[in-house]
Amino acid sequence: MSTINERSLLLHEENRGKLRVESAVAITNADELSLAYTPGVAEPCRKIAADPNVVYRYTVKSHTVAVISDGSAVLGLGNIGAAAAIPVMEGKCALFKEFGGVDAFPICLDTQDEDEIVETCIRLAPVFGGINLEDISAPRCFAVERRLREALDIPVFHDDQHGTAIVVTAALLNACRLTGKSFSSLRAVVNGAGAAGSAISRMLLGMGIGELFVCDTKGIICRGRTAGMNADKEELAQLSNRENRTGSLADALRGSDVFIGVSKPGVLTGEMIRTMNADPMIFAMANPEPEILPDAALAAGAAIVGTGRSDFPNQINNVLAFPGLFKGALSVRSGAITENMKHAAARAIAALVSDEELKADYLLPAAFDPRVAPAVAEAAAAQARADGVARI
Amino acid sequence: MSTINERSLLLHEENRGKLRVESAVAITNADELSLAYTPGVAEPCRKIAADPNVVYRYTVKSHTVAVISDGSAVLGLGNIGAAAAIPVMEGKCALFKEFGGVDAFPICLDTQDEDEIVETCIRLAPVFGGINLEDISAPRCFAVERRLREALDIPVFHDDQHGTAIVVTAALLNACRLTGKSFSSLRAVVNGAGAAGSAISRMLLGMGIGELFVCDTKGIICRGRTAGMNADKEELAQLSNRENRTGSLADALRGSDVFIGVSKPGVLTGEMIRTMNADPMIFAMANPEPEILPDAALAAGAAIVGTGRSDFPNQINNVLAFPGLFKGALSVRSGAITENMKHAAARAIAALVSDEELKADYLLPAAFDPRVAPAVAEAAAAQARADGVARI
Repeated sequence: MSTINERSLLLHEENRGKLRVESAVAITNADELSLAYTPGVAEPCRKIAADPNVVYRYTVKSHTVAVISDGSAVLGLGNIGAAAAIPVMEGKCALFKEFGGVDAFPICLDTQDEDEIVETCIRLAPVFGGINLEDISAPRCFAVERRLREALDIPVFHDDQHGTAIVVTAALLNACRLTGKSFSSLRAVVNGAGAAGSAISRMLLGMGIGELFVCDTKGIICRGRTAGMNADKEELAQLSNRENRTGSLADALRGSDVFIGVSKPGVLTGEMIRTMNADPMIFAMANPEPEILPDAALAAGAAIVGTGRSDFPNQINNVLAFPGLFKGALSVRSGAITENMKHAAARAIAALVSDEELKADYLLPAAFDPRVAPAVAEAAAAQARADGVARI
Repeated sequence: MSTINERSLLLHEENRGKLRVESAVAITNADELSLAYTPGVAEPCRKIAADPNVVYRYTVKSHTVAVISDGSAVLGLGNIGAAAAIPVMEGKCALFKEFGGVDAFPICLDTQDEDEIVETCIRLAPVFGGINLEDISAPRCFAVERRLREALDIPVFHDDQHGTAIVVTAALLNACRLTGKSFSSLRAVVNGAGAAGSAISRMLLGMGIGELFVCDTKGIICRGRTAGMNADKEELAQLSNRENRTGSLADALRGSDVFIGVSKPGVLTGEMIRTMNADPMIFAMANPEPEILPDAALAAGAAIVGTGRSDFPNQINNVLAFPGLFKGALSVRSGAITENMKHAAARAIAALVSDEELKADYLLPAAFDPRVAPAVAEAAAAQARADGVARI
């Protein structure tokens, strides 16, 4: 029996990668050629030249997303560069299509310079209806996303940040439903202040969580701290930790309800869990080895355990969010993916689990549940309209 | 009955553009997901990180081309910009797939600055096995192509230049076969010194044509001329016109065998044709209105007439060249498309017309002849090996 690694290599080699670009129109005779190419093609060109908005009507822009990486933070592999990142970006594009019906093409950039990434994305944007940034390391990813959102009139979304945030929030909403705890009274600890940790923290704060502490390897991020800070953490220090608590992860967890880990294996102990409030909720998403194994968390009294892994219950899987979110944004030609749209996506994912289905080991719909992407898309599109960013 | 323009608009709108990106692998259950994406996908990433050459084995790079334009010289429409160029680039990608089995994706750049085009193409190159430049205006297109060829280890090919050159050369080779004239004794006039005219001139000279004059709106390009010159024309002045003749297009044509026009309607008259050698060969490729209409050329004694149009005989259609040329280059992981490979492609196209088929109004195989792309690919691949640019 070959291993998953061997099988994956074979799959990639036999299929020569994982994507194909197909013609959506037949070109089998001179008449069809004259419509798809010269001379007929000149007419949609003229229409777009006369009115740039109709580019959505006559081209792939209305349904096509760029999946863009610089290869600086690929999976758990780190900075492996543009070429080595291609299999992940192809996979992401395949998921966009298979789960959301969204066409996506991988762009792996041979630069890791913030300015160069930004200007390159701006220059190649015309054909795309949205940009999904992927596996760009923190803190550069924050500036890249912010600058592209400001410069472009299409949605720009860093999935490592916001996709993860949406799905863990959906899980947390359902954990509240199950335990009867109120979201607005929750005390939560996010361990890890990189791309995902920062976005999760901002999303939970934006949705009105009771109190939130962000920890990194130097302990709780607080106002006045100077060690290991950066612009993003300074902002987090302002937004979180109303009490301006100092100390370690263990100090943060004492009396909290939620642990959300996007850090590294082994940093959470059963002892720490035992100092948390009743019915502790543990989302240990370090990959592939979580911050604590589910069995150990449950033995220490956790009411809820989720991880990033498909072989444990409650997998925090981004595929629940990004295909539907882009599908919805594209469907109304949204100019952005707003905070509210992310919140709506999280609520839509959570709502797909009925009261009867909801259990400690079943907080989220299955990745292959065909209702997910349409529900997320509908919620995102409605919210885009409500937020005034929809253009149709 | 609706016009071709109306039908083309409808085709583009109903199909939401002309391309789709499809997953080449099934992702319908957790096992398939774990092979195409995490955790299995990490293994091909690791292999590429360890040995960059295997990117061809595990990704789409081995069969995928970028079709890149800045929208500065689109069809006969001129400088209509990136967005309005998308329908043409999508069409080109569709032709790549339908004729050559090559996957191609359109990149329309929101810049027309030479340096920015070059650096952007270099940065987005990792996922592509080749770059087809399209509809970039002269003289910038010369520098863009030259700089990219120097910077990248994948084929870079400006189709407006070399695709046209290859196909008109194929037609000319067969015109020689038919008339019994020797290619190395031909006197030819190329009218138009833009992208296509320059490339045609260089290719014919490279293949050893007897004598060649290049004309622009100021007349014959010659050494010592100062009006309307640029770096490319200075080179052409050195390469062509051994006699260093001066004068007008009419002067150049007197006593010549071949007229090749990539200029504008009406510049060639029957009177001029009557001053040419016996059995004049006329390739009047201005689009959509040729330099002279076929009937008028034949009435003036032309033995051979070709145009760019599908509704006249002998259409000089790039689709005979680029799909097979890239297919062949990709098949041997060629690092470039050499001059010899272009020559081989022209000869392969010409050779597909048998002695029995060859006639004044049948110089080239039909665009939809399924033998064309495989024959061009085989010739290009063999020549890449001979030239030492093949990597497998």
